[in-house]
Amino acid sequence: MSILVVGSMAFDSVKTPFGEVTEALGGSANYFSAAASFFTPVRLVAVVGRDFPESHLDFLRSRGVDLRGLERAPGKTFRWAGEYGYALNEAKTLDTQLNVFADFAPKIPEDYRDSEVVFLANIDPDLQREVLRQVRKPALVAADTMNYWITGKPEALKRTLAAVDMLIINDAETRQLAGEPNLVQAARIIRAWGPKVLVIKRGEYGALLYNDGEWFAAPAFPIEVVRDPTGAGDCFAGGCVGYLARAMRFDDITVRKAMILGSVMASFNVEAFSLDRLRTLTTAEIEARFRAFRRLCHFEELEPRATEVG
Amino acid sequence: MSILVVGSMAFDSVKTPFGEVTEALGGSANYFSAAASFFTPVRLVAVVGRDFPESHLDFLRSRGVDLRGLERAPGKTFRWAGEYGYALNEAKTLDTQLNVFADFAPKIPEDYRDSEVVFLANIDPDLQREVLRQVRKPALVAADTMNYWITGKPEALKRTLAAVDMLIINDAETRQLAGEPNLVQAARIIRAWGPKVLVIKRGEYGALLYNDGEWFAAPAFPIEVVRDPTGAGDCFAGGCVGYLARAMRFDDITVRKAMILGSVMASFNVEAFSLDRLRTLTTAEIEARFRAFRRLCHFEELEPRATEVG
Repeated sequence: MSILVVGSMAFDSVKTPFGEVTEALGGSANYFSAAASFFTPVRLVAVVGRDFPESHLDFLRSRGVDLRGLERAPGKTFRWAGEYGYALNEAKTLDTQLNVFADFAPKIPEDYRDSEVVFLANIDPDLQREVLRQVRKPALVAADTMNYWITGKPEALKRTLAAVDMLIINDAETRQLAGEPNLVQAARIIRAWGPKVLVIKRGEYGALLYNDGEWFAAPAFPIEVVRDPTGAGDCFAGGCVGYLARAMRFDDITVRKAMILGSVMASFNVEAFSLDRLRTLTTAEIEARFRAFRRLCHFEELEPRATEVG
Repeated sequence: MSILVVGSMAFDSVKTPFGEVTEALGGSANYFSAAASFFTPVRLVAVVGRDFPESHLDFLRSRGVDLRGLERAPGKTFRWAGEYGYALNEAKTLDTQLNVFADFAPKIPEDYRDSEVVFLANIDPDLQREVLRQVRKPALVAADTMNYWITGKPEALKRTLAAVDMLIINDAETRQLAGEPNLVQAARIIRAWGPKVLVIKRGEYGALLYNDGEWFAAPAFPIEVVRDPTGAGDCFAGGCVGYLARAMRFDDITVRKAMILGSVMASFNVEAFSLDRLRTLTTAEIEARFRAFRRLCHFEELEPRATEVG
């Protein structure tokens, strides 16, 4: 089934120990759509400025992403500049210019309102709820958020969480949102606010799934050259929610596979700057890396009497 | 088969958000032996001072640990004091008093020299080699080290590594030792110095295994109350190497199971201060948690055409 994604389109200027790019194509809606498009049709709602080149949309179009919900507003496109050291888990933000994104008021096209799966990327929680008001009856609502909203709009965020089935955030955000340093206890607190499924992203350490009381741990794939971690979290969400929209089953077995496919998409994305790696990615490569994840995680049952000292 | 372990016995004074202990039983040889003793007989070589109460050895004795190699030296026992905040992955060392450990010169009793498996805990790499000089022909030599030796005695450490089959260190030490921030590349560099098997401990994020070119990722178990992380790494090593000594097979399938048993032992140890949790631990609990690790890590194969956009 089609996914509706609402998020940002951006120009990212990124420096890592392996190179740098200036005003490369970025933004959560962009990364999410590209990754999800390998699994299911995607409908995008976002805003760009007058300075956004038409050619930047060619890749998403080539992946079949429906761009009728992309608004062009007077002004400049959202810009972000950041830098990573060798500790690639942590970005240092150098500059943020919201530009047209500051006044983003998502308008869901009539044709998108029947979307069965909705992904609310990291935007103002009031806008996230405004999106949900405009859609009919999605079978799955997944959402991201960030420390800025957790600190600045905790009550609005909680109202949004009440309508979210699956929350996909990082470990620091999990602790901050719950006000609890222990992840097991934090997950239980957040569960009580609404989301049946909590996905905790931990960057190079993988991701944890808390699915109504059951835990699943997905490792990150050991990557030899991580050139640019930007967008890894959104690619993870794209692979994960994209696969769920394709399967249209949300049982634990399916969600676990979705977590691994999210990890697969993130693992490819970090191999190059911007979303360049996704431009050449093939389904055969995705399937091969899924199988590599199976080998990465596999261990056998304990034989009888393994703990009997001989 | 019996394991010979050479390391420290200490009094640890530890403060965490969940409580504190003063001069509790600690030290790498102590934690390692207690954990390994659930799988195989253990022979301990370490030094304590005159102030070390005989009763502190009752637990290791009750677990069948052979203490004939424990030396009593004139002076005080090694003392360590540390503190953990809510980020339980990082200890802040408040005080270190080496005392009798400063002059530790491990003497391997004649009866220990035929040990088939040797674990060299974190001691001076020259002493680690001195231990190996005194044993006959172990089938497996596993070792730990730390930033202090990586910085202070890099050449001595490399000579030791040439004689080590399995190196068990944390991720920061891996990067520092190899002089390479990327773990995949760092593992390859360290492999070239000797150890066929590299185990990279990552605390609350689990552990990675690099076994002659193949990777395996073991998660940490989600624990609701981590009271004291002290000794988790040594309990991991104890469970891991203890199981290998029991199996006396070092193929990839066996080493993967050993990694999980290491994670199992570490996950129990952090539930209480000192090694108190191991005092009440049963083999039934170990086996149950191993099965819980299987559920934690399990995901199914990808069905055909999962990446065909419908």
